[in-house]
Amino acid sequence: MDGPVNFELHERLEADTFHVGDFPLCQVLMMNDQRFPWFILVPRKGQMTELYHLTEEDRVHYIQETSFLSQKIMDAFSGHKLNVATLGNIVPQLHIHHVVRFREDEAWPGPVWGQGTAVPYTDDVLKERLSRLNLLEGELFTPTQFLVDMLEK
Amino acid sequence: MDGPVNFELHERLEADTFHVGDFPLCQVLMMNDQRFPWFILVPRKGQMTELYHLTEEDRVHYIQETSFLSQKIMDAFSGHKLNVATLGNIVPQLHIHHVVRFREDEAWPGPVWGQGTAVPYTDDVLKERLSRLNLLEGELFTPTQFLVDMLEK
Repeated sequence: MDGPVNFELHERLEADTFHVGDFPLCQVLMMNDQRFPWFILVPRKGQMTELYHLTEEDRVHYIQETSFLSQKIMDAFSGHKLNVATLGNIVPQLHIHHVVRFREDEAWPGPVWGQGTAVPYTDDVLKERLSRLNLLEGELFTPTQFLVDMLEK
Repeated sequence: MDGPVNFELHERLEADTFHVGDFPLCQVLMMNDQRFPWFILVPRKGQMTELYHLTEEDRVHYIQETSFLSQKIMDAFSGHKLNVATLGNIVPQLHIHHVVRFREDEAWPGPVWGQGTAVPYTDDVLKERLSRLNLLEGELFTPTQFLVDMLEK
């Protein structure tokens, strides 16, 4: 796997999320919207816009990372269904949404994109949600200083 | 890879799509909605509901099949963006949407799910769309008799 080449996170993703950690291929972001446990994987691969643009080797990394994250967040939040999607109609940089859904959430059974208004996290709710994930113990996963600081608060 | 175990296509997918072929892991369906070139992969794996439920071996099959299909349909229809998503909030059987999007399509830039009303194919449009894909030449792909008959009409 190549290192990060010309990689810079899109300003919209930067503004709307917390960067909580890194897998070998992808950055792990958490959407600043407490209505849904909502995570985003962003392969650190420059200007890529589609999953099929990944090399064969990176595709295998990707499928490992999405599976690891998916199971982790579904277990942590006891979700009813996981929505995994790469849309990119507005922010073209390749990013893959992972949204834990509940039959009683405000967008159910529709998709979450473009529905209602994001509710930013308070520190308490953010800490509670992140601590449930036990992400500091992952093997694939390297936490950011932001995540470490948040969990020690 | 195991063979199909207790696999039966969900009646809603059966009603809304054409079964055009099969990959080693997945059935390939085409949504009966000519507003969008819209394909669906369904792993032939019984009661599975989430991608991360696939075995490691099947995950690698899946990533190959989705990549092959994605590139094929983006090339065939010269799409502006591909939307790949597993939602399943209404039909729980694991199925992965692949929707070729255009900046001038009726749902852009929003997602397609739940937007407007499907426009069923006429035979002429269906044949034209399927013939652009050259699916009879794939190595991974086995066409159904429906596809063969449609292309010979």
